[in-house]
Amino acid sequence: MSGNTFGTLFAVTNFGESHGPAIGCVIDGCPPGMALSESDIQPDLDRRRPGTSRHVTQRQEEDKVEILSGVYEGRTTGTPIALLIRNTDQRSKDYSEIAQTFRPGHADYTYLQKYGRRDPRGGGRASARLTAPMVAAGAVAKKWLFEKYGTTFRGCMQQIGDIAIPFESWDHVPHNPFFAPVADVSALEAYMDTLRKAGDSCGARIRAVASQVPVGLGEPLFDRLDADIAYAMMGINAVKGVEIGAGFASVTQRGTTHGDSPTPQGFRTNNAGGVLGGISTGQDLEVSIAIKPTSSIISPRETINLKGESTEVVTKGRHDPCVGIRATPIAEAMLALVVIEHALRQRAQNGDVAPPMDPIPSSFL
Amino acid sequence: MSGNTFGTLFAVTNFGESHGPAIGCVIDGCPPGMALSESDIQPDLDRRRPGTSRHVTQRQEEDKVEILSGVYEGRTTGTPIALLIRNTDQRSKDYSEIAQTFRPGHADYTYLQKYGRRDPRGGGRASARLTAPMVAAGAVAKKWLFEKYGTTFRGCMQQIGDIAIPFESWDHVPHNPFFAPVADVSALEAYMDTLRKAGDSCGARIRAVASQVPVGLGEPLFDRLDADIAYAMMGINAVKGVEIGAGFASVTQRGTTHGDSPTPQGFRTNNAGGVLGGISTGQDLEVSIAIKPTSSIISPRETINLKGESTEVVTKGRHDPCVGIRATPIAEAMLALVVIEHALRQRAQNGDVAPPMDPIPSSFL
Amino acid sequence: MSGNTFGTLFAVTNFGESHGPAIGCVIDGCPPGMALSESDIQPDLDRRRPGTSRHVTQRQEEDKVEILSGVYEGRTTGTPIALLIRNTDQRSKDYSEIAQTFRPGHADYTYLQKYGRRDPRGGGRASARLTAPMVAAGAVAKKWLFEKYGTTFRGCMQQIGDIAIPFESWDHVPHNPFFAPVADVSALEAYMDTLRKAGDSCGARIRAVASQVPVGLGEPLFDRLDADIAYAMMGINAVKGVEIGAGFASVTQRGTTHGDSPTPQGFRTNNAGGVLGGISTGQDLEVSIAIKPTSSIISPRETINLKGESTEVVTKGRHDPCVGIRATPIAEAMLALVVIEHALRQRAQNGDVAPPMDPIPSSFL
Amino acid sequence: MSGNTFGTLFAVTNFGESHGPAIGCVIDGCPPGMALSESDIQPDLDRRRPGTSRHVTQRQEEDKVEILSGVYEGRTTGTPIALLIRNTDQRSKDYSEIAQTFRPGHADYTYLQKYGRRDPRGGGRASARLTAPMVAAGAVAKKWLFEKYGTTFRGCMQQIGDIAIPFESWDHVPHNPFFAPVADVSALEAYMDTLRKAGDSCGARIRAVASQVPVGLGEPLFDRLDADIAYAMMGINAVKGVEIGAGFASVTQRGTTHGDSPTPQGFRTNNAGGVLGGISTGQDLEVSIAIKPTSSIISPRETINLKGESTEVVTKGRHDPCVGIRATPIAEAMLALVVIEHALRQRAQNGDVAPPMDPIPSSFL
Repeated sequence: MSGNTFGTLFAVTNFGESHGPAIGCVIDGCPPGMALSESDIQPDLDRRRPGTSRHVTQRQEEDKVEILSGVYEGRTTGTPIALLIRNTDQRSKDYSEIAQTFRPGHADYTYLQKYGRRDPRGGGRASARLTAPMVAAGAVAKKWLFEKYGTTFRGCMQQIGDIAIPFESWDHVPHNPFFAPVADVSALEAYMDTLRKAGDSCGARIRAVASQVPVGLGEPLFDRLDADIAYAMMGINAVKGVEIGAGFASVTQRGTTHGDSPTPQGFRTNNAGGVLGGISTGQDLEVSIAIKPTSSIISPRETINLKGESTEVVTKGRHDPCVGIRATPIAEAMLALVVIEHALRQRAQNGDVAPPMDPIPSSFL
Repeated sequence: MSGNTFGTLFAVTNFGESHGPAIGCVIDGCPPGMALSESDIQPDLDRRRPGTSRHVTQRQEEDKVEILSGVYEGRTTGTPIALLIRNTDQRSKDYSEIAQTFRPGHADYTYLQKYGRRDPRGGGRASARLTAPMVAAGAVAKKWLFEKYGTTFRGCMQQIGDIAIPFESWDHVPHNPFFAPVADVSALEAYMDTLRKAGDSCGARIRAVASQVPVGLGEPLFDRLDADIAYAMMGINAVKGVEIGAGFASVTQRGTTHGDSPTPQGFRTNNAGGVLGGISTGQDLEVSIAIKPTSSIISPRETINLKGESTEVVTKGRHDPCVGIRATPIAEAMLALVVIEHALRQRAQNGDVAPPMDPIPSSFL
Repeated sequence: MSGNTFGTLFAVTNFGESHGPAIGCVIDGCPPGMALSESDIQPDLDRRRPGTSRHVTQRQEEDKVEILSGVYEGRTTGTPIALLIRNTDQRSKDYSEIAQTFRPGHADYTYLQKYGRRDPRGGGRASARLTAPMVAAGAVAKKWLFEKYGTTFRGCMQQIGDIAIPFESWDHVPHNPFFAPVADVSALEAYMDTLRKAGDSCGARIRAVASQVPVGLGEPLFDRLDADIAYAMMGINAVKGVEIGAGFASVTQRGTTHGDSPTPQGFRTNNAGGVLGGISTGQDLEVSIAIKPTSSIISPRETINLKGESTEVVTKGRHDPCVGIRATPIAEAMLALVVIEHALRQRAQNGDVAPPMDPIPSSFL
Repeated sequence: MSGNTFGTLFAVTNFGESHGPAIGCVIDGCPPGMALSESDIQPDLDRRRPGTSRHVTQRQEEDKVEILSGVYEGRTTGTPIALLIRNTDQRSKDYSEIAQTFRPGHADYTYLQKYGRRDPRGGGRASARLTAPMVAAGAVAKKWLFEKYGTTFRGCMQQIGDIAIPFESWDHVPHNPFFAPVADVSALEAYMDTLRKAGDSCGARIRAVASQVPVGLGEPLFDRLDADIAYAMMGINAVKGVEIGAGFASVTQRGTTHGDSPTPQGFRTNNAGGVLGGISTGQDLEVSIAIKPTSSIISPRETINLKGESTEVVTKGRHDPCVGIRATPIAEAMLALVVIEHALRQRAQNGDVAPPMDPIPSSFL
């Protein structure tokens, strides 16, 4: 209810602030019997963590995860899995002076209005740092879904600011700091360097895909698979738009072209993005999100102070010139958390879930 | 959990099928003491109901609502408000033949895969007809929010197929069948007539706005106001994309331009669409959604039958050539349901909610 | 959240007031494919309904149930099952005069304090009449559990006022108006007649039992099977105490006698009442509840009026001299709703649930 | 859903196992602005912790709590409060041999059946040690309720095994190891010494009381205040029975005696235990619970091993001869968690909650 738990059957409760002693989460509902150790979780955390290239914040955080519960003799027990990540490289002095003003694009103002107080250190609870525990929880979800159904999750960069990025191959994604599916990222590097020197920031567009998704996941009216994906994606810091399948392009499509025709060999197209009537079709889940430019920039901005008087604010400290860059593993993780939630719901309603089916399961013949 | 209840503190449980005896909902959590009668609800239902122009389905439904509980001597009692709408113009014969095939773009296939059976009559549970009870529940939410905070909800058409619609004035919206904010809709009428004659359909883009929204609504991490709006909008039949504020345009914006500067007179711009860090700023909530073309078209489509054999399907019956047209009051209603949910949550956490505040409430000085 | 929905995976949302136009519920989460019609539900409603003997209220209600949705061609579709029961024998004049006073033992005072208003007609929302929709929902749950696991639910009277009732046989229960497991109920009839003539009422003690319950239902910490049973039973009107297994007798037991020893042939005893560590053992679930005397009696009682002045109140109208009598089918229904909820949860976590197992499933050998 | 979160608006998510590295909880929904530090929580933990007298387990645990988040500059921020308690005195060797058998009265068997595996070390997740985080969370709830409404929570021992304990005064409770409200506990000490020497254990009966409870807390049908109290109490390890107010004594009461008459000076009696129609009356909440004898005893017991063969088990290790003794602060804490949950719900529905009212609030005159 207070918005710190994601999911119901696979429920992840997140806690911590950017500059507090620790951040973490409690995963409740992970099925028992799955082999699990920190080494299953750390790789995704490492993909998200700061300080890995000159194009992201230089804050140095190991993001080392500790499993506090829910695993016995190397296997999940079905009881809550608590994950702890200690903060190690806070520099709160960076933020002391801005406690008196409201940074444009930041949650400073809304937090103060909602709670009557706020933790200004690194954005406190509003920091994207709180996505780390979700990436950790997503790694647990990914492992279970892969072992159970062969489901996999991938993400890549589609656009950074003005530069659209063509899709060449998933193989390129791990080999550049932008999660870009292209071999040559020199243009992106030059673009980012210019932007950083200008003390400005830019937005980005990310694509996330789930493959080998069981058919039949999602509820018809409100907990639709696509609705829950939209909820999950719009919940990622700085996201302002979400598309499933054809997305906004469907506005100018015709009924004769949009509808994906089923054939004996499967669906001919995937304008639906893997969801029909809120329920998974077994095709790839195709999601695209828009991420706004980083609000923390060193260029001076017009604002007001706590007294409501006009003033200027400059955000020093160490920030990502494009928060979208590190959003790719986050989008994958959130997508995995939505899929596992619905896989468990489907089991509750209809017993064990089948893996992706042929267009028509023999049981219906 | 099974996806038929929307909201938690203001919870709307929806039931019924397109061609069953009745549809309706139970509203649980409406605060006591508000004057309420069918006449508060019927007008919004009439805005959504079919058969009102040649540009929508010709199915004739009065959509007459009956309040079964929760109101005593003309005022809400704080107990569940059950709303019943009897179906009157079902023509199930229209659907008998398509029970053996899967209509492209429809939920026929996913329902069968999920449940092992489906009600083919008018799309059964997957029909947009089930939005009627939500429009009714939204009318109750709108009334309470207006009386308590002066909050208002409006929606209009932004684009139909290839025709973008400029915003002239809200005053035009009630005076044309397209909810278009323009005086002259002759171009739209011609476009729709051509489309209908061609036996095809088109998509649409809708805008929904909430004004006088209290500051501080929404939770920081997961039940963010924008995330819940995305969830609500993507849950509307045929919606494939959702934007808040600048939406996908923020991808190409710069940090120096996107961030809305607070001033002593209020925010200078509203790229945020009224939400910062998941919490309402008190500015207008600005939402835009993409709606796919109607899947029910009389043009023949490639598909398969229950045996998995190639075949063709033609969808007869009475359908909207552009489902987006009737989506405007639905989007308003869903937005109202999100806002009232968070207004009640905010009361739970912080006591009575203030109406939209000046940039800085005196209590913080 | 507002307390009108019971369960999460098998969620029953209840609506209506004693003297409103109708009462009913929406069942969300019933698995698809089960044969269901009104005739599966009506028998349990008939066991609970008033006017069936001189020992219960003389209000004549047919309690005829109508299925509004969720069933197609005689089988559940997995979508919400809405059940409607029209009220037919309201006599609101009976209640007009007591609207100005607070009846001792009734919710008049608390409703007014909570909501600022109340529906005094027949107790409004606080009437035990609202248990009828739960009995209907329980009948649906019972049917699914019996078909899936062979689970059965029974209840009987253990004590009425001062008269303890020995357990002779379940066979006697349907053959007397008290649900008493004895052949001769003449003493009970005489007791009740005396009580009624005296214008007084008495309490009762009810036993409810579930047999063939799958092993492993219930969550360890908070949604324990026994905790949810206690919640369900204490939620029945007039219940003041709940026991599982040995209950309060366990206070004077020793560890050497209380613990039920597992043997190759099963557990030797059932002091646990079928629950260990919050999880079902596969033994019978044994529940006992205390029901307070009916608060509606014609004997004059001291009270206050709306002005807070001392006065007297006499409750006319048609009332049960022992509300416990009709509570037996209600207790069975609520127990069934708890068991089905946990059976579905167990499926979500661990896949399909096994029926009651031998002490050790071969899979663990 | 998996039973490790208590509450919705004031939600406490519990994690850990008896012999894991740590136990703890995340409190989500604590209103912002309350002064809070470890020193507000530690005292209640110290009342519950083991090793404080010869009458409880000799396991030495400091139960030192660390606040990981949700507090900034000494005040709650409205974001999740994570509490961590490291385990320090595990002796897992004590449990190694019993991993092959099922201890009567323990959850060994049901955990294995439910999850297919179990952590046998100190009972793993089933250990009463997991009540420590709830006592910590309860301390936070108590503080807020006291500051807001002056609500207080007290508990005492009513009976240990065969020895009923008369109520002399609350003042005695802190001054003996049994939480007994009597000056002289020599009889209890002798009784416990005899029991311990006999290698046996006994049950207990505990009373918990909340005073200065706001009027109007609780929902009419399912989330009744009494139902939620029953759920909370039955969820405490080893509890087998719960009573509210007169409890089982109400079975033999008459309507003319049970109903509590309102007077201009307040209610004349409190058979209701502070709840009418599921809603608080403003009187003391009166709860009584039955706790079964400790299942861990050194006397040999008949049981079976993992192969299902007959065998004997002796539970060595360090155990409480009467788990009821340390249950008093736990019962208080759980009662506080129920009350704060409903206080926040009431705020959501009806705005700020009034403190306990006169029989009739002036607003109704």
